[in-house]
Amino acid sequence: MPDRLSEFEFIARYLAPLAGEGAYGLTDDAASIAPPAGQDLVLSTDMLSAGTHFFPDDPAGAIARKALRVNLSDLAAKGAKPLGFLLGLALPGDWSEPWLAAFCDGLRHDVGHFDVPLLGGDTVGTRGILTISITVLGLVPAGAMLRRTTAQAGDRIFVSGTIGDAALGLKARLDPAAGWLAALAADERAFLLERYLLPRPRLALAEGARRHARAGMDVSDGFVGDLRKMLAGAGVGATVALDKVPLSQAASAAVAAAPDLFETALTGGDDYELLLAIPAGEAEAFRAAARAADIAVTEVGTVTADPVIHFVAADGADRAFARGSYLHF
Amino acid sequence: MPDRLSEFEFIARYLAPLAGEGAYGLTDDAASIAPPAGQDLVLSTDMLSAGTHFFPDDPAGAIARKALRVNLSDLAAKGAKPLGFLLGLALPGDWSEPWLAAFCDGLRHDVGHFDVPLLGGDTVGTRGILTISITVLGLVPAGAMLRRTTAQAGDRIFVSGTIGDAALGLKARLDPAAGWLAALAADERAFLLERYLLPRPRLALAEGARRHARAGMDVSDGFVGDLRKMLAGAGVGATVALDKVPLSQAASAAVAAAPDLFETALTGGDDYELLLAIPAGEAEAFRAAARAADIAVTEVGTVTADPVIHFVAADGADRAFARGSYLHF
Repeated sequence: MPDRLSEFEFIARYLAPLAGEGAYGLTDDAASIAPPAGQDLVLSTDMLSAGTHFFPDDPAGAIARKALRVNLSDLAAKGAKPLGFLLGLALPGDWSEPWLAAFCDGLRHDVGHFDVPLLGGDTVGTRGILTISITVLGLVPAGAMLRRTTAQAGDRIFVSGTIGDAALGLKARLDPAAGWLAALAADERAFLLERYLLPRPRLALAEGARRHARAGMDVSDGFVGDLRKMLAGAGVGATVALDKVPLSQAASAAVAAAPDLFETALTGGDDYELLLAIPAGEAEAFRAAARAADIAVTEVGTVTADPVIHFVAADGADRAFARGSYLHF
Repeated sequence: MPDRLSEFEFIARYLAPLAGEGAYGLTDDAASIAPPAGQDLVLSTDMLSAGTHFFPDDPAGAIARKALRVNLSDLAAKGAKPLGFLLGLALPGDWSEPWLAAFCDGLRHDVGHFDVPLLGGDTVGTRGILTISITVLGLVPAGAMLRRTTAQAGDRIFVSGTIGDAALGLKARLDPAAGWLAALAADERAFLLERYLLPRPRLALAEGARRHARAGMDVSDGFVGDLRKMLAGAGVGATVALDKVPLSQAASAAVAAAPDLFETALTGGDDYELLLAIPAGEAEAFRAAARAADIAVTEVGTVTADPVIHFVAADGADRAFARGSYLHF
């Protein structure tokens, strides 16, 4: 197809408008940035592959936004402010210019919305399937990155937003004829599908988390497994009240229709909510910061010195989860 | 395969030993680094996909090293010193622990050799083929990154090492029975194959390039096309003496056996040599820096105000190249 877009034209027409200071309009081999004094750089990479992390026929703009947003969610969980990102794009041979245009338009929307410019990247052909790798850079005051493995006994465990929506949205995509879906209103079904398609990185809560939390991560692989990761690294455990774990109206309706979906909600992942351990004395200040950011937060349990996590049901019984989280490979 | 390595074990056993300061032993969701005062960060991403950038049956350690080295080559061309890298790895379902162990062992070799620690990354399963995305970070004194598009008329054009070896090595891999290969000695064939398999990033020349060159890039897509890119961005041209372009003994033997291979050598890419525009008054100092770094450099032409590149053959005639460089997609 000799009239297809060249790499040069793709960069100049679609990517260069997203470029930030120090990226030289993507005409150089590298970006150079002068980090502000007194700030640490926070760095994270997330890779997404078609058929694993998104559906190949998802709207191109939504694929781009999800790839960027899962990275921004890591920044939010570390208490960082976005600085920019680099985009690696492995394109299979059947790409089209309208698809690329839509991909970049989705990216452009979020670059503006989250104020996170493109700093560089690489676009290559692949004999495989669409794969996107984003490295995101953020800033925190020196030494202040919110760590994952620093929770202490007595800390209160908070989560933002609601848990399980995206996992249920994925289940709905995979089996649209499932009985439980019939029990949901149309807008509830749409809400779950949207939550899978388009994560909402909690950047508005990043500073509040950094100021008030002792440890944090984002829930990407499932609430149960991610909590285990966060606490195991600190050698502590927790008591979690399962009836406190915040479910959306749609997820509640799904679980009411099919109680097994509670396990899906708590272990399926793709939530991109914040999971934080907050010293008891900071809990009220954190709640106030969350209110100011207009993000719901819920206390779901307490960190314990005993390195076991008790997930306690409403009837007081411990609940076991066979598989805590999504396995990557 | 329940006895396969888990993601956690893979990170702990194979990747954590490569982690640098600020990477928290890869137990956190992000790295945090404090950039040294007075330095700019240089950032670049290169993505490699099996069957496009390497052969799927190349040794795993060589694949890892190539992925890292093509990124380090960008740092060298920008005059930067390596600081660290992030690794994105999309693994198809048929991976094995010995393969991963060999991949990480190759990486470990280069992490030590080039003093470039692992800062983070992401490993995911893919339904496609092996794809590697590396983002590399380097440092230069503030404002001193060597730019691509800043050459001026009168600058001398230098290249490091020899041109075309990797392109001929690739040709030899694709057609091992080609007649021209029979004209080469066994060690010449081995040299070309090695040059394709394992780039040599010219980091030892990075500081010399930064101090003495006005513009630079690495030759990754082909000497002819990359020179066009470098000069077009500056609105200048050049006169290049084709008989000055440095060829290895092996490449010379190949071209002697099959003259068409000269075009392959000059346009095939994968050289990872430095291409520099050096003010005439700096040429001697640059040569001295290259001698000190024990890297051969060759002056191949001069930048002209006339924005055309004349590739002049030994007989004085202009030579045209139909296809200047490798096309990415």
